[in-house]
Amino acid sequence: MNKRYQVVGIGNAMVDVLCQVDDAFLSRAGVEKGIMQLIDMPRAVALYGQMGPAREVSGGSAANTIAGFAALGGRTAYVGKVRDDQLGAIFAHDMRAQGADYETPFAPAQTTEETGRCMVLVTPDGERSMSTYLGVSEHLSPTDIDPAQMAQAEWLYLEGYRFDGPESHAAFAKAISATRAAGGRVSLTLSDPFCVKRHRDAFRAMIRDHVDLLFCNQHELLAMYRNATLDEAMDEAASEIDIVACTASEQGAWVLAGGERHHAPAVATSVVDATGAGDLFASGFLWGMIEGRPWAECARMGCIAAGEVISHIGARPEADLKALMARDRLG
Amino acid sequence: MNKRYQVVGIGNAMVDVLCQVDDAFLSRAGVEKGIMQLIDMPRAVALYGQMGPAREVSGGSAANTIAGFAALGGRTAYVGKVRDDQLGAIFAHDMRAQGADYETPFAPAQTTEETGRCMVLVTPDGERSMSTYLGVSEHLSPTDIDPAQMAQAEWLYLEGYRFDGPESHAAFAKAISATRAAGGRVSLTLSDPFCVKRHRDAFRAMIRDHVDLLFCNQHELLAMYRNATLDEAMDEAASEIDIVACTASEQGAWVLAGGERHHAPAVATSVVDATGAGDLFASGFLWGMIEGRPWAECARMGCIAAGEVISHIGARPEADLKALMARDRLG
Repeated sequence: MNKRYQVVGIGNAMVDVLCQVDDAFLSRAGVEKGIMQLIDMPRAVALYGQMGPAREVSGGSAANTIAGFAALGGRTAYVGKVRDDQLGAIFAHDMRAQGADYETPFAPAQTTEETGRCMVLVTPDGERSMSTYLGVSEHLSPTDIDPAQMAQAEWLYLEGYRFDGPESHAAFAKAISATRAAGGRVSLTLSDPFCVKRHRDAFRAMIRDHVDLLFCNQHELLAMYRNATLDEAMDEAASEIDIVACTASEQGAWVLAGGERHHAPAVATSVVDATGAGDLFASGFLWGMIEGRPWAECARMGCIAAGEVISHIGARPEADLKALMARDRLG
Repeated sequence: MNKRYQVVGIGNAMVDVLCQVDDAFLSRAGVEKGIMQLIDMPRAVALYGQMGPAREVSGGSAANTIAGFAALGGRTAYVGKVRDDQLGAIFAHDMRAQGADYETPFAPAQTTEETGRCMVLVTPDGERSMSTYLGVSEHLSPTDIDPAQMAQAEWLYLEGYRFDGPESHAAFAKAISATRAAGGRVSLTLSDPFCVKRHRDAFRAMIRDHVDLLFCNQHELLAMYRNATLDEAMDEAASEIDIVACTASEQGAWVLAGGERHHAPAVATSVVDATGAGDLFASGFLWGMIEGRPWAECARMGCIAAGEVISHIGARPEADLKALMARDRLG
């Protein structure tokens, strides 16, 4: 198989607004720690007004994964919706400048909503708490999915967060259908435990019918399978999905594939900002898998990419990921 | 004197677009290393298209100084023009969230120009090369200067870059007049050696008639006074200005005041991004001076603030400047 794209990602396109705060700020502002909460524009304006000075870095979960995959040298494209405003221009620039194709049409100029943004509050422990105004990213529709592009994907990478939104399921169904019809395979990331709770039945149905590779962390997997232990949840997931890649923060990551379980340790680093850890794990893992490496090495490559992104503010890679892999003799 | 504001700054309001590049990129893109070049929108679009993924952080030279001064606990306000677009909202938020007053009216919605931005290319040696699209920041006019606010300033802080622009000289004259009439004093930063060359006569006239405190680096001072050596240039400046604060990168900073010369060494740090070094030197110096400290300590406080901002990407302080001063027993 030598398709134009090794991975095509679909998700909520947005720009992150990153600000370091203390835990007391989260309480005062009513932000629940460690998860992603959806907010509307009035709440976004109010929360921003309470926040200190911030930095803006392109984000979006699947977009981060695709940016990392492109940084590793992968052939890749991204699908997600922004508007033709300044934040939309920043998002589009950063995606293309990283080497990924990005051709999703802008939301119409007459729309009242803006490019989505995620207020990322980073506490001194490195944990991130996200408040997301979806904006026009919510309106990705089936017409934004180009079946010819999907047919050119070895792997489709679907963002769980994208299940929030009126036409998202139809857009995903169109993408999956076109990808599979051309022999491509489908991966899904569960994104967030509360996202799993909101969309558990839809996720279960998609997993049962379509998903070849599942990305998750321990909290998301337990929310999905409701087992008593992570071991049981991983085994149940592995019974219905070819490949399960489950991260567990400082415990590293497991891969369940071909009836076996593989493990890679986390990369020792001081956690400055956990934003994008799971996203970049997926970048490294996908790159290893497409290079045909053993599963434990794929997981190790995921941990290396995740380790880079949590060592600084922002969810896009800053260091040379290829060089980091080479230093670990995985380049 | 117990005025509402210890410092009121006036300058070009803008958002920095920061990108790490190698020296070959500067050559290819036609960007001269280490200085600030003015560019128009088509050039900004073309250059941005060549750049890699970037980060957006509020900038603007005097705005950085005022942000740092506010971070140190100073009573301060900023005057500079943005539009009511997304970058303008980011700029205004970051200024107010840092604790500075910022009430300059937005540029009218019908203007075709946008909020200014500065493409900051950072090379591996930590040097920054800036390409500035002034946008609406260029149109700060005398009507944007509130004489009542200027009368409430112990110190006015004028940005040399702001001499570029049709009504800037008139705006500065109005601000100086209102400040001095109420007993306030005037400081000026020379900003950039090429800026000095563009506006040398205007700078000389302003210095002769109005400036009590001059901020500069060695290159700017030599461009201004055209002496053979820095020593001679510093002496000539001191002969016509009460206080001269001159930085010289890793050689630290000199203060010439009251017929004496004082020196502070630079703070040992690895230079990640030199953007804002001079701006934050001014923040720390002004704070020390307003606290009534000896000149060498004022310069030391400037060097500490500058040392913080060059240790990371972006020209706004990220660490707690007050805590850094306290660690040096200057808090």
